[in-house]
Amino acid sequence: MNHPEYKRLKNLVELHILDFLPEIDSKSLTLYEAMRYSLTAGGKRLRSVLLLAACEFCGEKADIGLPYACALEYIQTYSLIHDDLPAIDNDDLRRGVPTSHKVYGEDVAILTGDGLLSAAFETMTKDMLLYLDDPDVLKRKVRAAFEISKGTGCRGMVAGQIADVESVNRQCSKEMLDYIHLNKTAAFIRSSVLAGCYLAGADKERCNAAATYGESVGLAFQIVNDLQDITGDAVMIGKNTGKDQKAKKCTYPALFGLKESGIKARELLNRARESVSMYYDEAEVFNAVIDFLEQPLG
Amino acid sequence: MNHPEYKRLKNLVELHILDFLPEIDSKSLTLYEAMRYSLTAGGKRLRSVLLLAACEFCGEKADIGLPYACALEYIQTYSLIHDDLPAIDNDDLRRGVPTSHKVYGEDVAILTGDGLLSAAFETMTKDMLLYLDDPDVLKRKVRAAFEISKGTGCRGMVAGQIADVESVNRQCSKEMLDYIHLNKTAAFIRSSVLAGCYLAGADKERCNAAATYGESVGLAFQIVNDLQDITGDAVMIGKNTGKDQKAKKCTYPALFGLKESGIKARELLNRARESVSMYYDEAEVFNAVIDFLEQPLG
Repeated sequence: MNHPEYKRLKNLVELHILDFLPEIDSKSLTLYEAMRYSLTAGGKRLRSVLLLAACEFCGEKADIGLPYACALEYIQTYSLIHDDLPAIDNDDLRRGVPTSHKVYGEDVAILTGDGLLSAAFETMTKDMLLYLDDPDVLKRKVRAAFEISKGTGCRGMVAGQIADVESVNRQCSKEMLDYIHLNKTAAFIRSSVLAGCYLAGADKERCNAAATYGESVGLAFQIVNDLQDITGDAVMIGKNTGKDQKAKKCTYPALFGLKESGIKARELLNRARESVSMYYDEAEVFNAVIDFLEQPLG
Repeated sequence: MNHPEYKRLKNLVELHILDFLPEIDSKSLTLYEAMRYSLTAGGKRLRSVLLLAACEFCGEKADIGLPYACALEYIQTYSLIHDDLPAIDNDDLRRGVPTSHKVYGEDVAILTGDGLLSAAFETMTKDMLLYLDDPDVLKRKVRAAFEISKGTGCRGMVAGQIADVESVNRQCSKEMLDYIHLNKTAAFIRSSVLAGCYLAGADKERCNAAATYGESVGLAFQIVNDLQDITGDAVMIGKNTGKDQKAKKCTYPALFGLKESGIKARELLNRARESVSMYYDEAEVFNAVIDFLEQPLG
């Protein structure tokens, strides 16, 4: 993601990513250190950048979304820490460095994930406290927090993760595959974009455009990710590859092959582009993300 | 906890405990089933009852606290599921039935915990959505949600859990012991009582009394719990006993012995009783909890 506008927003997130963590006691240094380790290991920061981009897309400054953008990174990071655990994906490399449980042990890794998820909601509700006497702004924040909790919870990301875990070694159907992608990945990305729109107090039309954009990009992102698991190299993408095949996971490439998967990803990215095409320059970062995801499709 | 007023509130929680879970898709039956399994396995429902009791203590109906009370049970249940995992306490019995990972496997248990924690915040923010046009009520809900996220997160329960995990096999100090108790147990119970007060829009005086009560009862509760791990029997308390000693955990009985621990618990319960003594009948459930915790102290 080398687009300068994308990088500007990504830098903003990375500059402030530790600022919204709850003040931690000196006796909880392990917890803080383990949270910091995983939060600062890099990554694309896709969800948080999209939230900030959505604020700007709706005519507000990115700053108003900053606590929520960081909360998204706390959620994304918790989900990766738990996903990498021996009982789930058993990964020892993430974002190019050893996974949390490899460094701190499984017990601390589980609790660090719990801490990050809790920190996300503490950050969002703490931010709300600052606007108790500004009902209009408070409403926007409540809507954004609900949208995020929905997209990442039992009818979003967590539902998708469970379905993903259950799909291993089972017959994979198109229906199940769509369910996993829609929930495990697209719901969270859609929520990130929508939350940005809500924070900016956008009208329905823009929210609808952003929702279609987020969902399409989210689905395409998962397919591109699964393609890279087959064709990519571990050093470049920062994690071990070939794992889905070994684990017999239900993925697009597994069900439809590489070529067909590439076509599907392109279709989704076209749909995403279409959904925000009437906004031209206002959707610059949104379009940069589409371009980035298209690159590995050749 | 046989006091009729306690039982009335407990029944209210148990009657509605599944009602606030997000609507779950038929493809997520495993997740729903695993959440239901742990949520309906019984337990004292101490935190949720205290939240409802606090609403009544402050002159409101218990009903106004119901979504938040159920959210507390989602959080409490998630923390038990994760705590029981092989990598942490490795327990196979909880509330008299096999633990989540024993029934559903470690992967599903980890994700079910994540789902329950997410569900807690989805429940609270969804409830806020109903009051977007009632700024005074909305404020109360935001305050309660922040209080709960603080008490259960990185400067509350999760911090205490990490310290607890780290204390195993190490030299145990009074300072570390107090830190663990204050965070692992007391912070959550204190938050539960305070959240009830906030939801009811209580004045500062009542909030302060409730905070002192919650913290004292929370600390006493942990000591009584640790005493029962030594003197209790597994069938009666629904989980395996003698585990703390085997794991060389940092507990009051381990550091000060049974007698001294009993005295400390009594002191804390007296402080709790004192803190709400001026409210007489309005503190009936609060006092019932104190009486209940005093019983095993003989």
